[in-house]
Amino acid sequence: MDEIFLGLLGCGTVGTGVAKLLVDNKDIIYKRTGKKLTLRRIADIDTKTDRGINFKKGVLVNDAQKVINDPKIDIVIEMIGGEKIAKELILEAINNKKHIITANKALLAGKNGVEIFKAAKKKGVFLGYEASVAGCIPIIKTIRESLVGNKITAISGILNGTCNYILSKITDEGLTFDKALLLAQKKGFAEADPFLDIEGHDTAHKLAILSTIAYGMIIDLNEIFVEGISKISPLDIKFAKQFGYCIKLLAINKNHDNCIEARVHPTMIPIDSILSNVNGSLNAISISGDAISDMLICGQGAGMMPTASAVISDIADIARNMEAGIENTVPALSYQPENIRKIPVLSINKISTNYYIRFFAADKPGVLSKIAGILGDFNISVKSVHQHKKSEKGPVPIVIFTHLAKEANMRKALENISELDVMADTPYLIRIEETDK
Amino acid sequence: MDEIFLGLLGCGTVGTGVAKLLVDNKDIIYKRTGKKLTLRRIADIDTKTDRGINFKKGVLVNDAQKVINDPKIDIVIEMIGGEKIAKELILEAINNKKHIITANKALLAGKNGVEIFKAAKKKGVFLGYEASVAGCIPIIKTIRESLVGNKITAISGILNGTCNYILSKITDEGLTFDKALLLAQKKGFAEADPFLDIEGHDTAHKLAILSTIAYGMIIDLNEIFVEGISKISPLDIKFAKQFGYCIKLLAINKNHDNCIEARVHPTMIPIDSILSNVNGSLNAISISGDAISDMLICGQGAGMMPTASAVISDIADIARNMEAGIENTVPALSYQPENIRKIPVLSINKISTNYYIRFFAADKPGVLSKIAGILGDFNISVKSVHQHKKSEKGPVPIVIFTHLAKEANMRKALENISELDVMADTPYLIRIEETDK
Repeated sequence: MDEIFLGLLGCGTVGTGVAKLLVDNKDIIYKRTGKKLTLRRIADIDTKTDRGINFKKGVLVNDAQKVINDPKIDIVIEMIGGEKIAKELILEAINNKKHIITANKALLAGKNGVEIFKAAKKKGVFLGYEASVAGCIPIIKTIRESLVGNKITAISGILNGTCNYILSKITDEGLTFDKALLLAQKKGFAEADPFLDIEGHDTAHKLAILSTIAYGMIIDLNEIFVEGISKISPLDIKFAKQFGYCIKLLAINKNHDNCIEARVHPTMIPIDSILSNVNGSLNAISISGDAISDMLICGQGAGMMPTASAVISDIADIARNMEAGIENTVPALSYQPENIRKIPVLSINKISTNYYIRFFAADKPGVLSKIAGILGDFNISVKSVHQHKKSEKGPVPIVIFTHLAKEANMRKALENISELDVMADTPYLIRIEETDK
Repeated sequence: MDEIFLGLLGCGTVGTGVAKLLVDNKDIIYKRTGKKLTLRRIADIDTKTDRGINFKKGVLVNDAQKVINDPKIDIVIEMIGGEKIAKELILEAINNKKHIITANKALLAGKNGVEIFKAAKKKGVFLGYEASVAGCIPIIKTIRESLVGNKITAISGILNGTCNYILSKITDEGLTFDKALLLAQKKGFAEADPFLDIEGHDTAHKLAILSTIAYGMIIDLNEIFVEGISKISPLDIKFAKQFGYCIKLLAINKNHDNCIEARVHPTMIPIDSILSNVNGSLNAISISGDAISDMLICGQGAGMMPTASAVISDIADIARNMEAGIENTVPALSYQPENIRKIPVLSINKISTNYYIRFFAADKPGVLSKIAGILGDFNISVKSVHQHKKSEKGPVPIVIFTHLAKEANMRKALENISELDVMADTPYLIRIEETDK
C-alpha cells in the first residue's frame, strides 16, 4: 500500500493545482508519508489546454467514467463544481468503493450532502472535504480533531475572499460597491456571475458545514439568515471607521445549548480586533470553546495552490488510513453518525444584538425626536446618535448606535420609522459584534 | 476498545485541567469519538490539596509506579515538567508499552527528546506532544498533517505568553521591564524564576520542535541563536511605535534549502501586521509554505484549560489509532524516521536583516558623521537617522534604521562605534522583520 492511485474529475484552476502540487512536492510528500501518490487519470471536457504539466499519454481523458470505473484508482478527487453532475459522479464513485475528496461546498451543504455522507458511510469509504471551507485553513481538521475535547460555543468567520476583497477596497480606497466588484472580477477574485458570493450564499454553505461539525447538527440552508454586501455604501464604511469599527461579511454561529444561532450578514467589528485586520482576499475563522477560550486561524481562503494544499492533506489522511485497512477513525461529520441530530435554529427575529442604523432624513427640527420615540416604543435603547453635516441640497444622514435589542423589535421599529414623511430613504441596518477581540 | 484507560503523572495546574476536562466534557467527547476516556490513576506528591474534582477513592496516589505499572492503563500523560524524573518515568512507561502524552518542551527539544522518540518508535507506542508548543494552538497537527503537501519556507511565532504579556504591558502602559515582570508574576503568568521565559530559552525549545517537524531535521538547542527581552527599554518601544513598528519576542526559522535559519530575539514588526495585534498572554504562529503562502494561528499559548484541550486532542488521536491496532499512521516527528537528518543551521553572523540601533551619545557636532562613517566602512547602508531632543543634562538618543545588512558586519561596526569616546552607553540593536503582513 505504498503507492496510492488517484483520479481527478475536473482539471480547472484547483484541479490543475492539485496535479501540480503532486508533481512538484512528490519527494517531500513521500518523505513525510512514506507513500507515492500517483495521479493515474484526469477527466476534463477540455483535453487541449496546456496546463503547464507534462501528463503522460492517456492520463488526461475527456470521459469521467474512465476515472470512476478504473479498478486501480483508490481515491477520486471531484473538482468539477456545480451540483448535478458532480453529485452523480461522486455517488457512482462511492458505489465503486472509491474514497472521495471534494471542495464542493454547495453540494455538501444542502440536502445532497446528507445523501452523499450517508452513501460514503454505507460503503465504508472516506469523504474528505477540508478544501470546501476556507481554502488552505485546516478548519475541518481543527474542529474535528484538535478541538475534540471542547464544547464549541461560537464560530465567526470571514469565509468569502471575494466579499472581503470588495469590502477592503471600499474601506481602503473609498470605491463604490460596483467599482470594487468590477475590480474583483478583473483580478479574477470574483466570478462572472458573482451572485452566490456577494449575496452571502457561498458563505452560508460554509457556515452550514461548520455548524454541522461543531455542534453535531443537521441544518437546512434555509434556516440560516443570509444578507449580502451589495447594499453597503462607502458612507457606512466611513461612519464605521469614525466610530472605531470595520465592516466584514461574517458567518456567525452561536451555541445556546438548546438552539443555535446561524447567520451571515455584514457586521461591524471593533477596528482593533484581529478579524478586522484580515484584509484582501484572506479568510479567517475565530472559534470559541469552553477550554480554549478563543482561537483564530487566518489564511488564503481560495485560489489554485492554497486549495490544492487542503486536498493533499485529505489525500494523505486517506492514504494513511487505508494502510490501517479500517473504516474512518475520525467520523466524517465530527460526531458519530448516531449522535448527529436536528437542533433548532433561532429565527433571526429572536436574536439580540447591537445595531448601527443609518437614516437619510429631511433636515428639519424634531426628526430625531420622532425616530428616538419610535425606537423607545419598541424597547430599543439608544447608545449614541450622530447627526451629520447639514446640507442645503436635501436630506442628511443620521447614524444611531443602539444597546442590545431584539431583531423583531428593530424590524418593527424600522418599518414605522420608514413611514415617517421626513424619511428620504429606507433605513440601513448593520449588526454589531463586540465580543471578538 | 470503547473504553480507554488513562494514567496521569503530575496533578498541578495543567494536570488538573486535563482531569477536569475529561469529567466536564465526557459526554461530548464520547459523542464524537465513540470512546469512554477513563482517568484510572493520578500520581502526585500532593494528594491532599482539593483540586475541585471528586476523584474516586484510590485514583489519586503518591506513587508514579502505580501509574506506569498498571497493566490496564493504555496512555500515560506526563505533566510533571522538569527533565530528570519526567524522562525516567516516560522511558519506563514506554518500556511498559504505554502510549505517552507530554507537554514537556524542555525535555523533548534537547538530546533527551531524540532518545525518547527513538524509544517510542522502537516499542511501537504513540508519543503525543501537541500541548508542548503554543498551548491550545494545533500547530503540531497542522504542520504534520494539514501542510503535508507543502514545502515549508518559514515559521515565525510568538511562543511565550509571559514575554508577550510583559512586552504588551510596556507598550500599552509604559511600564519598565522590571515592573511589567513583577506584574506578570503577580498575575501568575510568569514563574518565580522567570529565566527560561524572559531570556528566550523556552521559546527556543519550542522553535527546535517546530524546526524538526517542519523540515525533518535534527537540531541542537545550541545551534539556535537566543536573545531575551530583559534589555528592552520603554524608550525602544516608544521609538518602535513612532516608526510604525511593534516589538515582539519572535521565534523565527527560515528554510534556505541547504541550510536553516533558527533564531529567537526581540523583533520589530510592522504595526499593521496581524502578529503585532497579538497581545497579552496570547501566542501566535505564522507559517509560510509554497502552496499556502502564509497562514496564521492565534490562541491561548498556556494555562490550565487551553493546554488540557491540546492533551485531549492527543488522547483522542491515540484512542482512534489504537482501534486500528496499527503503529502510528502519522510519524511522530512528521517525517518518516529514516528521512530525518542533520541540516546545517546558519550562524547568526551569516544572517542578513534590517536593523534598528539605538545609541546614547554626547550631544556634540560630528557624532553622527562618526557613527555613519563606521557603518559605511562595514558596508551597512543607513535607511534613516533620527536624533532626538537635545538635553542639557547629557547624552541624547540617536536611532538608526538600516537597510539589509549582514549580522557579522553589524557586530563589528557596533564594536567600533562602542569605542568612540562620545558613546555614553552600549548601543542596543533590534532586528526587523518586514515580511509578515
